[in-house]
Amino acid sequence: MEQVVVIMGSTSDAQKVEPAIQILREFNIEVGVYCISAHRAPDGLKHFVKKINDSGHTLVIIAAAGKSAALPGVIASGTVVPVIGLPLGGTPLSGKEALYSMTEMPPGVPVATVGIDAAKNAGLLAIRIIATQVSDLALELERYYENLAKKSLEVNEQIHMQYAENHSSDHFRKV
Amino acid sequence: MEQVVVIMGSTSDAQKVEPAIQILREFNIEVGVYCISAHRAPDGLKHFVKKINDSGHTLVIIAAAGKSAALPGVIASGTVVPVIGLPLGGTPLSGKEALYSMTEMPPGVPVATVGIDAAKNAGLLAIRIIATQVSDLALELERYYENLAKKSLEVNEQIHMQYAENHSSDHFRKV
Amino acid sequence: MEQVVVIMGSTSDAQKVEPAIQILREFNIEVGVYCISAHRAPDGLKHFVKKINDSGHTLVIIAAAGKSAALPGVIASGTVVPVIGLPLGGTPLSGKEALYSMTEMPPGVPVATVGIDAAKNAGLLAIRIIATQVSDLALELERYYENLAKKSLEVNEQIHMQYAENHSSDHFRKV
Amino acid sequence: MEQVVVIMGSTSDAQKVEPAIQILREFNIEVGVYCISAHRAPDGLKHFVKKINDSGHTLVIIAAAGKSAALPGVIASGTVVPVIGLPLGGTPLSGKEALYSMTEMPPGVPVATVGIDAAKNAGLLAIRIIATQVSDLALELERYYENLAKKSLEVNEQIHMQYAENHSSDHFRKV
Amino acid sequence: MEQVVVIMGSTSDAQKVEPAIQILREFNIEVGVYCISAHRAPDGLKHFVKKINDSGHTLVIIAAAGKSAALPGVIASGTVVPVIGLPLGGTPLSGKEALYSMTEMPPGVPVATVGIDAAKNAGLLAIRIIATQVSDLALELERYYENLAKKSLEVNEQIHMQYAENHSSDHFRKV
Amino acid sequence: MEQVVVIMGSTSDAQKVEPAIQILREFNIEVGVYCISAHRAPDGLKHFVKKINDSGHTLVIIAAAGKSAALPGVIASGTVVPVIGLPLGGTPLSGKEALYSMTEMPPGVPVATVGIDAAKNAGLLAIRIIATQVSDLALELERYYENLAKKSLEVNEQIHMQYAENHSSDHFRKV
Amino acid sequence: MEQVVVIMGSTSDAQKVEPAIQILREFNIEVGVYCISAHRAPDGLKHFVKKINDSGHTLVIIAAAGKSAALPGVIASGTVVPVIGLPLGGTPLSGKEALYSMTEMPPGVPVATVGIDAAKNAGLLAIRIIATQVSDLALELERYYENLAKKSLEVNEQIHMQYAENHSSDHFRKV
Amino acid sequence: MEQVVVIMGSTSDAQKVEPAIQILREFNIEVGVYCISAHRAPDGLKHFVKKINDSGHTLVIIAAAGKSAALPGVIASGTVVPVIGLPLGGTPLSGKEALYSMTEMPPGVPVATVGIDAAKNAGLLAIRIIATQVSDLALELERYYENLAKKSLEVNEQIHMQYAENHSSDHFRKV
Repeated sequence: MEQVVVIMGSTSDAQKVEPAIQILREFNIEVGVYCISAHRAPDGLKHFVKKINDSGHTLVIIAAAGKSAALPGVIASGTVVPVIGLPLGGTPLSGKEALYSMTEMPPGVPVATVGIDAAKNAGLLAIRIIATQVSDLALELERYYENLAKKSLEVNEQIHMQYAENHSSDHFRKV
Repeated sequence: MEQVVVIMGSTSDAQKVEPAIQILREFNIEVGVYCISAHRAPDGLKHFVKKINDSGHTLVIIAAAGKSAALPGVIASGTVVPVIGLPLGGTPLSGKEALYSMTEMPPGVPVATVGIDAAKNAGLLAIRIIATQVSDLALELERYYENLAKKSLEVNEQIHMQYAENHSSDHFRKV
Repeated sequence: MEQVVVIMGSTSDAQKVEPAIQILREFNIEVGVYCISAHRAPDGLKHFVKKINDSGHTLVIIAAAGKSAALPGVIASGTVVPVIGLPLGGTPLSGKEALYSMTEMPPGVPVATVGIDAAKNAGLLAIRIIATQVSDLALELERYYENLAKKSLEVNEQIHMQYAENHSSDHFRKV
Repeated sequence: MEQVVVIMGSTSDAQKVEPAIQILREFNIEVGVYCISAHRAPDGLKHFVKKINDSGHTLVIIAAAGKSAALPGVIASGTVVPVIGLPLGGTPLSGKEALYSMTEMPPGVPVATVGIDAAKNAGLLAIRIIATQVSDLALELERYYENLAKKSLEVNEQIHMQYAENHSSDHFRKV
Repeated sequence: MEQVVVIMGSTSDAQKVEPAIQILREFNIEVGVYCISAHRAPDGLKHFVKKINDSGHTLVIIAAAGKSAALPGVIASGTVVPVIGLPLGGTPLSGKEALYSMTEMPPGVPVATVGIDAAKNAGLLAIRIIATQVSDLALELERYYENLAKKSLEVNEQIHMQYAENHSSDHFRKV
Repeated sequence: MEQVVVIMGSTSDAQKVEPAIQILREFNIEVGVYCISAHRAPDGLKHFVKKINDSGHTLVIIAAAGKSAALPGVIASGTVVPVIGLPLGGTPLSGKEALYSMTEMPPGVPVATVGIDAAKNAGLLAIRIIATQVSDLALELERYYENLAKKSLEVNEQIHMQYAENHSSDHFRKV
Repeated sequence: MEQVVVIMGSTSDAQKVEPAIQILREFNIEVGVYCISAHRAPDGLKHFVKKINDSGHTLVIIAAAGKSAALPGVIASGTVVPVIGLPLGGTPLSGKEALYSMTEMPPGVPVATVGIDAAKNAGLLAIRIIATQVSDLALELERYYENLAKKSLEVNEQIHMQYAENHSSDHFRKV
Repeated sequence: MEQVVVIMGSTSDAQKVEPAIQILREFNIEVGVYCISAHRAPDGLKHFVKKINDSGHTLVIIAAAGKSAALPGVIASGTVVPVIGLPLGGTPLSGKEALYSMTEMPPGVPVATVGIDAAKNAGLLAIRIIATQVSDLALELERYYENLAKKSLEVNEQIHMQYAENHSSDHFRKV
């Protein structure tokens, strides 16, 4: 089993999960992608979680699911590996049902839930968890955030200039 | 295993489940009461569902749970016996999270959900299902509803009289 | 009257109800499809429910409705046959109003509610109920689920391979 | 039948309905109070609506109900008399489910819905409807509102004085 | 002023209000259509309500508004004519905010609220109110509903036949 | 009229509004307290807003209201003075209906809305607005926030110590 | 720094913010536009707020943000300049999450929140605040509202005529 | 700084956070408890996060906050240490606003959110994260779950017996 396991409940979730996989690969994290439904393949899922436990190699599991979204909770009840829940939207209840299912777990079995359809954040949370024991990864993550900040401020410069150029301030009211 | 299995996720749910048990006993249905958490005792639950399947005797399962409320869905994914989901309230999200978890199951695995804290209706739904193959139970159920209707109309008489007596109509406006 | 009656409140619901009819036919269940509005044709509906009761043949009723969605509740108040409520979405309140109307019935009259627009699950719930008294149907249902599980695991293999192929693991970080 | 019929779904609603009855009596409107459950006594309700139609005397029906709250809609589907829906709260869903059931009726059958537990407004709406054909009632209603306004402004005087007295304005900041 | 006044808060609501006007004209009710914003033209609105009161001719006001939707409440606070509130959707909060604004009025000033975007029902509610004093209109309304019911049952026949034809029942399972 | 006008819709709101008055007095702002219902005394309210406009003295209006909560919007439609909306809770819809009514105003007429029952913040927002033209008030406000921050950090010290004392760290696991 | 600062959390918000900038320019208010993420560039944001404070020139800040929407609150915690929060929608939770984040601030730090995507109202609220100290701006704002009202009533005339013309009133029912 | 930092936004949250501290101590994890408001002491918070980063010792931060709940997001934007968000309820919006604020973070800055008031799960999630690099802690956690499961099944035995004893099955209906 890979160090980070990304598992979704249905093949229709594949596109939504993609940003999690991308960011993990961007940080060169070993990642495996799986698709097992908690409700349609319960025994397969149980077997899969056992494999994770037996391998002793997986550090984080990202479980993406929509609707009733039992997947991360069922996995978390079978392992002590931290499980990140990624609730998926696009449903009549807009993903709120999945968000509630993942956060409102019974006392004892936590799921680390991120935002609705927030796959990139699911990936980055996994990286943060791994970085607690890999100091160069922590450094790389810090550089990533420094870069985010730098780009954000460059964009700010551009936007501010652009609006200022578009509009002569000659006739501003004196206040 | 009993013909109707009532299972709750936590002992703190016992009082809320009581009306389901009472109505089932009122109709002399064989009922067994259990308490297994889907998340804290997943293997125990799996074993329990297998026992239900092996016995071949259980006709309906009522699964009561609050919060993330995976219990009825996990059970339904392990058996073809119809599963009635009883969502429990009294939480920060008022039971809506349990209601959504139980109804919004993935295609393939249905849970027959009743109202939040509606244990009596869970019991009556189980009786309706059994009555599809036990004609005297169907008759008894019909008498039960006739009685409900009769009592409702008696109450109506009383209420109407009581308000009429409390208030002299002498001074009613002519319209 | 047919063994399973599928009734909708409006012809505009026909497409949404289709998956219920399909899965019932896949299992060779005798199914009749009707369209009567609880609010626009209350006497017709009453007459229809009486026909169901008189025939003594119908085992399950699936009632699909949107908005105020009184249909399943009104039917359930006129028969002891189990009624499955299928709440329909696509409204300003996204089907939540129908979901609430169907689940939050008064004590005494249960509706077995499935998810918003979850017609397939409505059909499968009907099949589970009938299977409680038809053992070969129960077996067929078990094979259906075994098949679902099998396919789910095959899909898992494919997805896992596909992601692994797309990405050389040479440069994975050592953790 | 009385000119205004107040009907509730359950005796437990009696206290909540009281302000509607009081305001109607304050305006000397002939009012009858009833209690029939749409779901537990559907035939009794049908018979009751028929009596209203046959009497040709009732001008407005106020129907109070909680939860699924089919009562006003079922009545409105059986008569052309205007039906005021009074949704009741105190449930896990706080009365929102009753509010939605009453407003989101299918095209053709309207229910005139007032606020959750807003019995007084239900009564006043009935009075407004009757006043469209009883000019002295319209005048009395106008006086009622003039009185409300007068009292509101007297209260305003008192509150303003009371706060001003409690607090010396000597040290107010110059702005 | 006309017997029924339909007023909207913005010209962008015109299309949504149309079904109310159509059904009123179908029943030959004298209807006037207006567009005044409670917030952008408060004095104009006050003047308009005064004209309604002075004319003494208007029997019902239908006020359509979206978002904060103060229109019906402000009108109702200035007249004793019954005001029907028509909440409009298509907003980020899907019309729920307008629905709440219209129903949850303070004690004393009721608004008769119909469903979100339910213009036809707003019109029919106005007709029901007028029919309380115009017996031939009441009869016409009864015929309208009889016709609705008749059409509904004809549609039912067609749908039932169509599904039955599409599917040979030869291979139905024996239950 | 006072420089800050605090107006509530009902005397029952008086206690909830109190923290706004207190913080304004703490900063020595001239404040007047009023109670006028937008729906029960519309003419009185109009007259009151005219008095504010005529005085030319009022800098900010704080309008507190629950339920339909038209008060701040109606005031804002009659003046150019900035209006702070204070939505009040304790209703079946928990104050959400007032929050929505106040924020979702039509384009043209803004209400500066603070949190549900957040009277203190309503007062502080008024002070911030006045401070834009009173530099010593701005300084006083800065000192107020410095003080808040200082107290917050003192509390932090205490809490940290208290937990550390309660628990000997001798047996901490080596990680 | 400009007298009004408009700041957004992401470049993708630029189009939604536009109406605020337009109305401010229409009133000849000096406005600067910026784009800094509270979460991705926290130090840049802190530096930016310090610049605002040091300039002593900015009278109002409009902060637009979606989702978690910490931007206005973080800014308000670093300055005493009034901060207008503009919650942005188009998310799975429809902007409700941003609306709640902005209004439900802790006691001490208010954000003046306007409606979801209500950029024009954010701009007009800023103008109202500035107008408290610039009397000719107050007059201009009054003229703006008089114009709004005038246009609203002209539109009313047109709409009323247009509907009247489209429909001959010959056959109106006598009531 | 301690290996796990528990930080709350207000002293009034102390009791709600307690179960997180208890479970961490039960597992002998070094834990420090702090109380800093993101909005009232932003500089203090920034300094605090810098201390965490400089110490290089903290593995997980648990941030508990109610209402707008910016605390975990602001912390996460200043460090690469994984931040667990614990949303607190008991507010007019029942904690939903805090839940949304914590999950719906912008892309780039994740918060690992647990359920409303679910302090114990916040603690257990921290332990799971630390256990990824401390194998004996992982074993201890596994024993903890084995114990949970064992107790759950013992409770099940008791409950099943107790209900069976209370009710003689002599008169069960034959089905």
